[in-house]
Amino acid sequence: MEKDRRNFLKKASAAGIGLSLSPSIAFSKKKKKKNKALIGLIGVGARGRSHLKLLLNRSDVEIISVCDIDPEAIEKSKKMIREAGKKMPEFYTAHEHSYQEMLKKEKLEGVIISTPWRWHVPMSVDAMKCGVYAGVEVSAAMNMKECWDLVDTYEATKVPCMILENVCYRRDVMAVLNMVRQNLFGELVHFRGGYCHDLRSVKFNNGKQYYGGGVEFGEKAYSEAKWRTKYSLMREADIYPTHGLGPLAMYANINRGNRFKSLVSIASKGVGLHDYILNHPKGGINHPNASKEFKLGDVITSIITCENGETILLTHDTNLVRPYSLDFRVQGTRGIWEVDADKIHLAGKTKDHHWDKASETWLKEYDHPLWKKYEKDATGAGHGGMDFFVIHAFVEAVKNKTEPPLDVYDAAAWSAITPLSEASIQLGGEPQTFPDFTRGKWMHRSPIYQQPTDNILL
Amino acid sequence: MEKDRRNFLKKASAAGIGLSLSPSIAFSKKKKKKNKALIGLIGVGARGRSHLKLLLNRSDVEIISVCDIDPEAIEKSKKMIREAGKKMPEFYTAHEHSYQEMLKKEKLEGVIISTPWRWHVPMSVDAMKCGVYAGVEVSAAMNMKECWDLVDTYEATKVPCMILENVCYRRDVMAVLNMVRQNLFGELVHFRGGYCHDLRSVKFNNGKQYYGGGVEFGEKAYSEAKWRTKYSLMREADIYPTHGLGPLAMYANINRGNRFKSLVSIASKGVGLHDYILNHPKGGINHPNASKEFKLGDVITSIITCENGETILLTHDTNLVRPYSLDFRVQGTRGIWEVDADKIHLAGKTKDHHWDKASETWLKEYDHPLWKKYEKDATGAGHGGMDFFVIHAFVEAVKNKTEPPLDVYDAAAWSAITPLSEASIQLGGEPQTFPDFTRGKWMHRSPIYQQPTDNILL
Repeated sequence: MEKDRRNFLKKASAAGIGLSLSPSIAFSKKKKKKNKALIGLIGVGARGRSHLKLLLNRSDVEIISVCDIDPEAIEKSKKMIREAGKKMPEFYTAHEHSYQEMLKKEKLEGVIISTPWRWHVPMSVDAMKCGVYAGVEVSAAMNMKECWDLVDTYEATKVPCMILENVCYRRDVMAVLNMVRQNLFGELVHFRGGYCHDLRSVKFNNGKQYYGGGVEFGEKAYSEAKWRTKYSLMREADIYPTHGLGPLAMYANINRGNRFKSLVSIASKGVGLHDYILNHPKGGINHPNASKEFKLGDVITSIITCENGETILLTHDTNLVRPYSLDFRVQGTRGIWEVDADKIHLAGKTKDHHWDKASETWLKEYDHPLWKKYEKDATGAGHGGMDFFVIHAFVEAVKNKTEPPLDVYDAAAWSAITPLSEASIQLGGEPQTFPDFTRGKWMHRSPIYQQPTDNILL
Repeated sequence: MEKDRRNFLKKASAAGIGLSLSPSIAFSKKKKKKNKALIGLIGVGARGRSHLKLLLNRSDVEIISVCDIDPEAIEKSKKMIREAGKKMPEFYTAHEHSYQEMLKKEKLEGVIISTPWRWHVPMSVDAMKCGVYAGVEVSAAMNMKECWDLVDTYEATKVPCMILENVCYRRDVMAVLNMVRQNLFGELVHFRGGYCHDLRSVKFNNGKQYYGGGVEFGEKAYSEAKWRTKYSLMREADIYPTHGLGPLAMYANINRGNRFKSLVSIASKGVGLHDYILNHPKGGINHPNASKEFKLGDVITSIITCENGETILLTHDTNLVRPYSLDFRVQGTRGIWEVDADKIHLAGKTKDHHWDKASETWLKEYDHPLWKKYEKDATGAGHGGMDFFVIHAFVEAVKNKTEPPLDVYDAAAWSAITPLSEASIQLGGEPQTFPDFTRGKWMHRSPIYQQPTDNILL
């Protein structure tokens, strides 16, 4: 039946992407265990190839096709596939819309999208319309229209879209999830998170290397600086909210008994990028980029209010010299965890008014069952192993035809931070209201990983 | 001349407090070194007696008079003075307005006000009107009218009012000030601070002991819980902003080339105090206080925007179990300091993308000259020695007839957080505009401690 549906979808879309689906085509929810997931990749730059590597490691994945317009990315991918001794997939390389041809022609069950941000939503939407599970890199959407496009397409097709937020699977994040689910923090009241990452050498390079070595961006640059820096130039918003927000949304059961209600955002002055260009050996006052005015404030601070009364402090901080941090805090009536200080306090368990060092005590004791089970498989995977888990969750959902744990409503609600923060900042901090992307379903949906053994992953 | 002015003031006020002063009575700014400051105290509860102890240690202070309506506080003070071998002062104990009689009758140069919050402004105003330097405990004011009362009275009398914000003198805070002044953080962009202090056993006690042992507040309670808890019951605001804010205001030169421009505030749900009452052995569901609805949200988060583009994140967090923290962060184009994690990064000085442990390295190297000089005197003073410095600054200003480093404009601007956060919270986070309490003078005033050897303290 599942196959029929996909065949129908492909036929329906033969006349071009943009078909509208009958809502009667319901997505089958019954689990059927399957041997292999048939996966394609759109975008095999640095990030996409890191996913490719994980997929090549798996015996339950067949890589059907790969799409990219950069010959270097394609060559590097071919080499990886060859060296892994896997069957060479089909390649789609002709132009920016070749991915649509791939979605239509190939017998795909899921596609992993690791392209510049502007392509995330069009590609996810097209994948869903072709009956292919969309696994989309973060952020999923960059404006409110795109958020709704994701939701509307999912609701029309019932083909899932998973936001590939790897930080939800970080080992400490999952240990804290385990503790949250076991009520160790009591009633949750306040959260902090953010993306505090000195990206100056990601936003600028010399056109030859991935990171640094110059102050170029756009056409003269290489890799991410080619397209990503433009968002710092042209938008005053939290342009990359999900790494800091995803885990907190999971703790707070957002879209599952709770939801984001409103947000205020304030931007600091933006002087970091200009300062970097001025003081770089390859930059200086006479460099053309020294006259560019970057719209993005150096530190964007947002406060989100949730339906159940919790508040979330969210920070975007990528233009200043600083070591990496996701700034997590989880705080309730019975305890508090702070990631940067590696501190935890649990009422009646830690000494009164004193901290325990979190990593050495409670995070070990409450190591999540998923991590215990898959620790070996995760070893060597990107970002300390968490990339294994997010890809694993996607592949399992594809194989079993189940809903992924992080879904289209999460993608929409988390991504909505970008346009809402932009509006709030422009209005001097005026509160902005979140759309209810679930259209009321948040009241009835169940939290993920409610029991550590819940969901598809075990 | 100074004496003449004070005599005039006393005569003028003989008909009762509330005189209006001619603006022609200018306060003498010329420094005259003097042997002894003639000091009075209003309020000698726990906090007032801690100041009394510091004053008794000093050879440059004569304690002229003490006012309190609590016989126990008076007895304990007498004992301290006797044991210090100092001359017994006059005591004013009859009723709540006896302090006015004291201000009029006694030959005072300065008065230290450590009373419940509602009395801070009336007492400071009356002191200024009587020509007596007001040293007022934090917070100075609890509403906007009170903020202006402080400023207007100072401008009419030119008698200084110092907000006794001890945290401005904490050793790490001053080391960071030293580094800020030497530009080690580059251009300042973002700050964090707050009052994160589990006050549940301060807000509730058993009517016999200072802290805890029961869930009583108001008439049935002892010490602070008698009056302070009422603010948690009746106000939804950052009701105690200055410990976290004062140091940041000093770093950012607020009222001295910079100023607070606007603020947004968001409150989390307030469940911590109710939870405490419910679960306390002396509480429970049938205790009368279990039915009280406390207005104060557990975590109040505010973002302040400064005239020069910096942002300040300010937190008030006193209802939940947690170890103490003032949550400081200082962040600029060249470095970042975070107090809780004891972490610091300085561009070109610490290893790229890595933290140094702040207390063991840079905070030692940049120990403030004031601390180096007075370390011995500060030993044993309250709150790790910082109380010595704030009292020292006040006494020096009184002795030398100079402006104190933290002045009436600071008192007003910092205290204004309370009413502004209250308004913003009530309006769902609407941004609120700060009054310019300096009426334009912030453009022309000079930063304090601009050079480490600046100001009256050395």
